[in-house]
Amino acid sequence: MPAMMKAAIFVEPGRIEIDDKPIPEIGPNDALMRVTTTTICGTDIHILKGEYPVERGLTIGHEPVGIIEKLGANVQGYQEGQRVIAGAICPSFTSYGCQDGCSSQDGGHHSHGYKPMGGWRFGNTIDGAQAEYLLVPDAQANLSPVPDGLTDEQVLMCPDIMSTGFAGAEAGGIKIGDTVVVFAQGPIGLCATAGARLRGAGMIIAVDGVDERLTMAKQMGADVTLDFRKVDVVDEVLKLTGGRGVDVAIEALGLQQTFESALRVLKPGGTLSSLGVYSENLTIPLGAFCAGLGDHKIITSLCPGGKERMRRLMSIIAAGRLDLGPMVTHRFALENIVDAYDLFSHQRDGVLKVALEVS
Amino acid sequence: MPAMMKAAIFVEPGRIEIDDKPIPEIGPNDALMRVTTTTICGTDIHILKGEYPVERGLTIGHEPVGIIEKLGANVQGYQEGQRVIAGAICPSFTSYGCQDGCSSQDGGHHSHGYKPMGGWRFGNTIDGAQAEYLLVPDAQANLSPVPDGLTDEQVLMCPDIMSTGFAGAEAGGIKIGDTVVVFAQGPIGLCATAGARLRGAGMIIAVDGVDERLTMAKQMGADVTLDFRKVDVVDEVLKLTGGRGVDVAIEALGLQQTFESALRVLKPGGTLSSLGVYSENLTIPLGAFCAGLGDHKIITSLCPGGKERMRRLMSIIAAGRLDLGPMVTHRFALENIVDAYDLFSHQRDGVLKVALEVS
Amino acid sequence: MPAMMKAAIFVEPGRIEIDDKPIPEIGPNDALMRVTTTTICGTDIHILKGEYPVERGLTIGHEPVGIIEKLGANVQGYQEGQRVIAGAICPSFTSYGCQDGCSSQDGGHHSHGYKPMGGWRFGNTIDGAQAEYLLVPDAQANLSPVPDGLTDEQVLMCPDIMSTGFAGAEAGGIKIGDTVVVFAQGPIGLCATAGARLRGAGMIIAVDGVDERLTMAKQMGADVTLDFRKVDVVDEVLKLTGGRGVDVAIEALGLQQTFESALRVLKPGGTLSSLGVYSENLTIPLGAFCAGLGDHKIITSLCPGGKERMRRLMSIIAAGRLDLGPMVTHRFALENIVDAYDLFSHQRDGVLKVALEVS
Amino acid sequence: MPAMMKAAIFVEPGRIEIDDKPIPEIGPNDALMRVTTTTICGTDIHILKGEYPVERGLTIGHEPVGIIEKLGANVQGYQEGQRVIAGAICPSFTSYGCQDGCSSQDGGHHSHGYKPMGGWRFGNTIDGAQAEYLLVPDAQANLSPVPDGLTDEQVLMCPDIMSTGFAGAEAGGIKIGDTVVVFAQGPIGLCATAGARLRGAGMIIAVDGVDERLTMAKQMGADVTLDFRKVDVVDEVLKLTGGRGVDVAIEALGLQQTFESALRVLKPGGTLSSLGVYSENLTIPLGAFCAGLGDHKIITSLCPGGKERMRRLMSIIAAGRLDLGPMVTHRFALENIVDAYDLFSHQRDGVLKVALEVS
Repeated sequence: MPAMMKAAIFVEPGRIEIDDKPIPEIGPNDALMRVTTTTICGTDIHILKGEYPVERGLTIGHEPVGIIEKLGANVQGYQEGQRVIAGAICPSFTSYGCQDGCSSQDGGHHSHGYKPMGGWRFGNTIDGAQAEYLLVPDAQANLSPVPDGLTDEQVLMCPDIMSTGFAGAEAGGIKIGDTVVVFAQGPIGLCATAGARLRGAGMIIAVDGVDERLTMAKQMGADVTLDFRKVDVVDEVLKLTGGRGVDVAIEALGLQQTFESALRVLKPGGTLSSLGVYSENLTIPLGAFCAGLGDHKIITSLCPGGKERMRRLMSIIAAGRLDLGPMVTHRFALENIVDAYDLFSHQRDGVLKVALEVS
Repeated sequence: MPAMMKAAIFVEPGRIEIDDKPIPEIGPNDALMRVTTTTICGTDIHILKGEYPVERGLTIGHEPVGIIEKLGANVQGYQEGQRVIAGAICPSFTSYGCQDGCSSQDGGHHSHGYKPMGGWRFGNTIDGAQAEYLLVPDAQANLSPVPDGLTDEQVLMCPDIMSTGFAGAEAGGIKIGDTVVVFAQGPIGLCATAGARLRGAGMIIAVDGVDERLTMAKQMGADVTLDFRKVDVVDEVLKLTGGRGVDVAIEALGLQQTFESALRVLKPGGTLSSLGVYSENLTIPLGAFCAGLGDHKIITSLCPGGKERMRRLMSIIAAGRLDLGPMVTHRFALENIVDAYDLFSHQRDGVLKVALEVS
Repeated sequence: MPAMMKAAIFVEPGRIEIDDKPIPEIGPNDALMRVTTTTICGTDIHILKGEYPVERGLTIGHEPVGIIEKLGANVQGYQEGQRVIAGAICPSFTSYGCQDGCSSQDGGHHSHGYKPMGGWRFGNTIDGAQAEYLLVPDAQANLSPVPDGLTDEQVLMCPDIMSTGFAGAEAGGIKIGDTVVVFAQGPIGLCATAGARLRGAGMIIAVDGVDERLTMAKQMGADVTLDFRKVDVVDEVLKLTGGRGVDVAIEALGLQQTFESALRVLKPGGTLSSLGVYSENLTIPLGAFCAGLGDHKIITSLCPGGKERMRRLMSIIAAGRLDLGPMVTHRFALENIVDAYDLFSHQRDGVLKVALEVS
Repeated sequence: MPAMMKAAIFVEPGRIEIDDKPIPEIGPNDALMRVTTTTICGTDIHILKGEYPVERGLTIGHEPVGIIEKLGANVQGYQEGQRVIAGAICPSFTSYGCQDGCSSQDGGHHSHGYKPMGGWRFGNTIDGAQAEYLLVPDAQANLSPVPDGLTDEQVLMCPDIMSTGFAGAEAGGIKIGDTVVVFAQGPIGLCATAGARLRGAGMIIAVDGVDERLTMAKQMGADVTLDFRKVDVVDEVLKLTGGRGVDVAIEALGLQQTFESALRVLKPGGTLSSLGVYSENLTIPLGAFCAGLGDHKIITSLCPGGKERMRRLMSIIAAGRLDLGPMVTHRFALENIVDAYDLFSHQRDGVLKVALEVS
């Protein structure tokens, strides 16, 4: 009889619950991670609600911090007992898509290249991180040791939120002195704000409608915050830039309105860096788009993964450039995950991110 | 009494006619060009129809080939009598926008940066090239000598069509071996096809619904042509790429359908390079856009201008890399420009581009 | 009789002195700036010593902060009395070289492109900034208004030192989490350190042999400082990076030894960003260069100029990202410039930069 | 007793000979390729002469074309019997270095990143391709199917020569209309010439001292050829460019003289793309380097590998863009490899590349 573990599984729309599952058996290229801390992502809420379909019985979660329990025969340069993380996006790095510079778009072995979102496996196509143990496939490419002195919570945002938010700043091609606006200051938007700061932006404008988030935005590096409940954001951004528009607008929510506002405040020649997950067709307004003659760029980014990405993000935290600790507003034991989902999905009590303490 | 010249002016919607106008007086930073050959652009048809508003009495046209008649006091390194061209986009190169890498977006002297399409002045905000003489502002930045041995018709596409079409290939970031599809094979699409070939694309797929244009597309470098009247283009492109999608899709028409098809055939991580001038809001279909998670890029480009751009394009023709001569299908004297507009606007007789012989 | 002004002129090797000169007459594209504050650059010391040849009688200096006294007829969007700076590199922006993306390499009107260092005119090919008045050529492209609330000293580094140092970080292509070493912490090296910090480097290592400079390096953003008098810098950097080498090494001195050390600590695939002005042939050691198979990049940068560059740098200061005030260690009136040169050239008294107060 | 095969092994300096070796046993991530055609590289001559040290008994060669004989258990999406190639550089794609964008610099599993030339394993750190069978490690990342209709000889240059030569053009950042000079027209230089043509260069100048190579250079896309025995190449290139210098100079030999000439003909702001393998320290002449102020780039490239790279190169050949067939000047059976080495190392009989027919 196999050894068993606790895991949070998708039962049916509306129900994610703790259940017993066998501890995974690993193959030669895998590793088994004992999860110590994990968290819940906005995407998991879509899964919970049945808006993003996954197989029933799948373990949910894609943000693992833990300890190497066991290494496959081909995985070298690591030790059992080592503290590691793995990215939410966990690519093979061997596919055509990965070798072509887009690792997020392939985790498979397709003879013809690209699988949309193929790098996202945990809690999507294979069992995820909201469990006591996690099988990490292609471990050689994905296990990234946690630098000494960093706590689980300090690196808990690296696998997804920090990597995604930073990707928004990076894809925007921010140059020194750029003016940047970030629409929405949830966890990803906050990290985009921090990323814009790290890339050398001049004025950074953060937009949201929740007081705590606007306050946190200042802490993450925003110079100006705009509350969309109180001002016309497009007017205000144009005023702040003397009519010039922003160099880079980052969308971090996934709605027509924020997408459209991002385009309306963009200078000719500017970049709209989109991070949001949309749920409807989008409309590009003709005027804001200069009828196609504005030298605009619209760029979407899926969270970059892989051990080198994780190493870089953790080095930023180790160097003291950024403290994402304050974004962990609540803590739960894994066995109380149903409460955690309830709090997080209803955005109660000023929640930004929860830490799930596993073992 | 000033010396007079013939010029094609916008009288009112539906009427562009030859009239007499004074030969322009030039300032210290200007040059006076005696136009020898020019042409009509699709944009001029929008002006003719009143769809793009310009001042009544304005001389139309933005594709000048000619001879320097007179140089302003500050313009150095040129001689009167020299054969030159100037770009359709004729920027100052002194503004914030120009210095920030987007010369097309500013021809003015704005203290705050960017004027949408500000670099487009000829036949838009100042008198244009369908005339015997043309005032070239910021001449030091915009006059580009024609290499010995090249005829007017050989360089007639450089100011706009070739620069725009090539920009589509350049903005697509084509890498060696990329698969590229170009939607619409009018003059700009044909130059985009040629540009994709010049940048080292592997398979190039050209789409149109006019036989002559599909034939010309092969001549410009397409490997495969698709007639949208006969096949489902999206299906066919996916089949041709083994389901992988294209690396770069170039839109060269300006319609929802071509924009949308371009997105539907794009691989995750691919680039939609848009050249078309749209006349309505655009819709981004959610699925083709991977809900924002496909690492897609949508990039629009306005025709690059300036003397260095013109120099480079003419060097391609001088080196024998590309012969755009076959695109000139009809010839008219300037005084018969009304006939030329009539032919071109109704796309009669397989017309691609007309040459207007001025003097 | 023309109105006269005080100016620091190059008399002969070893002698830069204050003399009387006529206030410049301006042409239609020029502006006359009344200089309020300027400074002395290391390059000026080379001129003083006769190591870099300039015409006798030339006014020296290329770092002007001042007030618009008079505008040429063609210069628009500015007002007399406005506080402005201009870059040390003051390009025309109309030449082939400028339009080709390398504005520093051309300030002239060459029919064939590029003039090495052609954008450097002040105190090199035309009269410079160590004077009561300065003629700014191509003023439309080069005058950049000082944001309200910033003092002369706060923006005094923008024209050269900050622009050059930042260019070192930018040319290095620093990515988030890169490890960067900066060799030499004079004014330019300190700004390179600050620039690396602004671009999101992880560990930043600063190297020098002067205590005050190492202390200042920490203030500018270095995580680790190495004193080459006390440690073997190459060994130490390799140790700090676990044998991996740095992603980017910035050379900010101009000696064989620092250039060579920069190469020796560079990872395969890394970039050596060189800012130093060398005075002898350089040797590339075969081993450190992996015999040409290391995927290394060696990139040199001349100070970027133009009003947009200046605007961006000042926006960084206005946003409070960086305070270069502490780098001004000494102040002199223009008439005492001989003393200032004496102090600065002998690097006495911990001098980093002097402010010359003109009017 | 294991099955045996013929292989060309390094016996001692001066001796590479055919010997019997066991056919390799493969692991779960490997593939066994039956080699059908391979070739000899200039690097192999360095090994032969003892100038580049390898272990005695090692099988030499890194340019395999063949058929899949056997697949490891984890290798998916291929079939036994399939025609494939693998790159000379055969990286793991899982290491920090690979994930950081420099796959050539790591084929190992180092915890700290980069191993210089670590991606080069065949005939360097593991047995190579001049044998009847070849073990391909990390096969999932490195096996690339040959498109139908292409012969062995048509794809024989892909693994190394074409990939390296093209990398020289790519690293040069060639833009449409650039003037490019390529120093030395051996196999790699010829492919650099072809690559420059594919990227849209304007005038391409090829330099060599062998008539057949200059003739072949024209066939590969050069517009002008210069024979260094007859003209002063630096003078001539400057004359051809009107004194402007070239945008990109590609060094494809590995000597001080070609490196230095490349720098001397480079425009300010230009790029020296270096492919040569040097055997001595290099000297950068101060003047040609503008004392470090010329905005120059010096970029070295090691041959890119991986299945996506191979796929792209073969797609260029399949599309008929380039025919490298004429570069195969001689053919030998594997058992006559000593004669082939003799011919190739002495560059007798106009040899460019030899094809070794294995089975």
